[in-house]
Amino acid sequence: MNTPLRKKRVVIIGGGFAGLRAAHELEGEERISLTLIDEKNHHLFQPLLYQVATAGLNPSDIAVPIRAQFTGSKNVEIKMDTVESVNWETHRVQLKNHNSIDFDYLIVACGVQQSYFGKNEWETFAPGLKTVDQATEIRRRILSAFEFAENETDPLLQKVLLTFVIVGGGPTGVELAGAIADISRTVLVRDFRNIDPSKAHIILIEAGPRILEAFHPSLSTQANHDLHDLGVEIRLNTRVERIDEEGVSFGQETIKSKTVLWAAGVRAGKLSPTLGVALDRIGRIKVNDDLSIPSHPEGFAVGDIAAFEVAEGQTLPGLASVATQAGRDAAHNILRDLNNEPRKKFVYHNKGQMATIGKHKAVVEIGKLRFSGYPAWILWLFVHILFLVGFRNRIFVLMEWIWNYLFSKRGSRLITSWDWKTSDR
Amino acid sequence: MNTPLRKKRVVIIGGGFAGLRAAHELEGEERISLTLIDEKNHHLFQPLLYQVATAGLNPSDIAVPIRAQFTGSKNVEIKMDTVESVNWETHRVQLKNHNSIDFDYLIVACGVQQSYFGKNEWETFAPGLKTVDQATEIRRRILSAFEFAENETDPLLQKVLLTFVIVGGGPTGVELAGAIADISRTVLVRDFRNIDPSKAHIILIEAGPRILEAFHPSLSTQANHDLHDLGVEIRLNTRVERIDEEGVSFGQETIKSKTVLWAAGVRAGKLSPTLGVALDRIGRIKVNDDLSIPSHPEGFAVGDIAAFEVAEGQTLPGLASVATQAGRDAAHNILRDLNNEPRKKFVYHNKGQMATIGKHKAVVEIGKLRFSGYPAWILWLFVHILFLVGFRNRIFVLMEWIWNYLFSKRGSRLITSWDWKTSDR
Repeated sequence: MNTPLRKKRVVIIGGGFAGLRAAHELEGEERISLTLIDEKNHHLFQPLLYQVATAGLNPSDIAVPIRAQFTGSKNVEIKMDTVESVNWETHRVQLKNHNSIDFDYLIVACGVQQSYFGKNEWETFAPGLKTVDQATEIRRRILSAFEFAENETDPLLQKVLLTFVIVGGGPTGVELAGAIADISRTVLVRDFRNIDPSKAHIILIEAGPRILEAFHPSLSTQANHDLHDLGVEIRLNTRVERIDEEGVSFGQETIKSKTVLWAAGVRAGKLSPTLGVALDRIGRIKVNDDLSIPSHPEGFAVGDIAAFEVAEGQTLPGLASVATQAGRDAAHNILRDLNNEPRKKFVYHNKGQMATIGKHKAVVEIGKLRFSGYPAWILWLFVHILFLVGFRNRIFVLMEWIWNYLFSKRGSRLITSWDWKTSDR
Repeated sequence: MNTPLRKKRVVIIGGGFAGLRAAHELEGEERISLTLIDEKNHHLFQPLLYQVATAGLNPSDIAVPIRAQFTGSKNVEIKMDTVESVNWETHRVQLKNHNSIDFDYLIVACGVQQSYFGKNEWETFAPGLKTVDQATEIRRRILSAFEFAENETDPLLQKVLLTFVIVGGGPTGVELAGAIADISRTVLVRDFRNIDPSKAHIILIEAGPRILEAFHPSLSTQANHDLHDLGVEIRLNTRVERIDEEGVSFGQETIKSKTVLWAAGVRAGKLSPTLGVALDRIGRIKVNDDLSIPSHPEGFAVGDIAAFEVAEGQTLPGLASVATQAGRDAAHNILRDLNNEPRKKFVYHNKGQMATIGKHKAVVEIGKLRFSGYPAWILWLFVHILFLVGFRNRIFVLMEWIWNYLFSKRGSRLITSWDWKTSDR
């Protein structure tokens, strides 16, 4: 089909864990000319994004320019652009701000975004946590709530301002709730005159019967216990019915709050429905066992956007370790094609999962090994430093953490703009 | 007038160099109850803001929460709020989001903002550099220009995207031009495939006959020479007549550019005209020689908002050292009132001035002592680290600088949003 002299053109959509890893596997490969496309100029280490949202880390501590990762690799080209559509017949990717790019192989690794289960109007009042801008917006809302409460003379309104609601009891929700509790109990507690930040009311709402439902029940119980110790109220079996400027409502009850955060679900973005391929219920791309897209052997889907079925109705979770392994293996299957070798099936090697709960506590699950508390927290710190991309980021995050730990301070307590978007104040 | 038992209420408007210093002079003084009001929650070290705009530093490296500076001082209250007006009769400050605050003494230290000489419509196309948000916006524009140029196939448009115009040849303009030259020549140079960032065209426009006109002419010449070595084109005696989406125009000429930055002038904000006091041509408050406001001995103006006349028609410049000294002395004059001592006249002790030009070069003027080049740059580094507020910031800025210096990298190369505001793309 192609002359043997021409390089194979591989296009990767998305510079998250999956796309970045796939690109690294193919960089320097002289038979391949690679283009990585991302809407942003940076790769983001999402597992620590909640620390940006709670003023513990700087955005640039957990983000690296994608371009700078491939400085020496002449066969890799980075484009900051948005993919509008993919034409499987002409093998061409159409970009928003550019003409188009031809491909021989396509790796779709564009990730997912938060889902409001059809209630997109909730987003204004309950931002999600997927991008740097969302994290700094959440940081602004949390810090502003304390500032406005300090200025408020009406005790009822003061109470509303000091009520923080997190919807969704997965790792992100648990980590956000723990961090807000931590910052209000230790960092902010001495800095105000009219309010007591440690009295902040933090409520974690979960629709299911337990938080951290992807973990073993014993760790859910432990996390429940640890959050309770931090003063976080947990509402289980509670399905949110309305979110507006008043707060969060379900059944006959309304929790009045100006700071509602959303960590309750994900769905695919705009791209996957345009691909003309089989999708699952939330718009993720169904893939074959070699990670390729059915009827498009030259196309792969990896990372959160891929629905890789491991059993009837059960797909691999949206974890960094799944994405990294799939990105690597999709790239390897392309290399096998070039070598005229048969492709290999993707087998996920479960590296376990973990979530941290405030300072000093975490839950860890590695296969049948489960533990929590201080040792789990130390392991959590170690793993997150280790997997951060970029030597600089490892040093700076470590420094920030040591600083925060020693002095119970936060380096990034910035409110840079004045708007109080969810309020009519 | 007041009962001797009641504490004197001092209100300070603005947490910049002047307001923060005044507050520190009065904290812990048991005869005084102090309120510091600022629109932002942080004090900003503006002399290094150009490094945030050019991806060298994080916003939080040069900003500290004002509140955290007064944690232990129970006589100090911080309010994040906007002052709407001052009533000199009732001695009351009206706030935007709060009722009002009574004062016995008022220190106005609200600073200035950039002035477009009546052409406010230019701001969209040529943002100024006064706030964190403006700095991250400028950073976004500079980094995006390179990204868009990389994707552009039309060589003429590519050239427009790689043209950067800085209007105003004062220290901010010189430092911005030098830093953009530096980042394009060293940091970005190996990361692109279709463009050569080192060919970026950087133009510094100055209306007067020389850049750094507040410095001795020999230093202007030196700065001119150093910028030229960095590849910056300098246009003197050039008064900008139009700025729009095309670029910058004067006379018959238009410099086409998508990235125009404004560093050309300042004026007072909204507050000073509402005070009913004598203002100078650009809205700054005229002050007596004890820093008080004429006909309002209980009112002081310090920092950039004050027009302190040292000779007929000549006022003190808007420098951090002037602001700090005036803030200190206004606070001392209030204390002298409480002690029934006569107030002292303000005498500015000239600490000199400096500006840096890219990496390795600076110009320094301390009284009659003038020097430039590498020694000046070392002194510049030393002074800026020394005067940074907050021990944490000193450490982190020092770390960032060492990192940037050793590896010619920038830690904060983040484009967090996609909009290309000044363009119709």
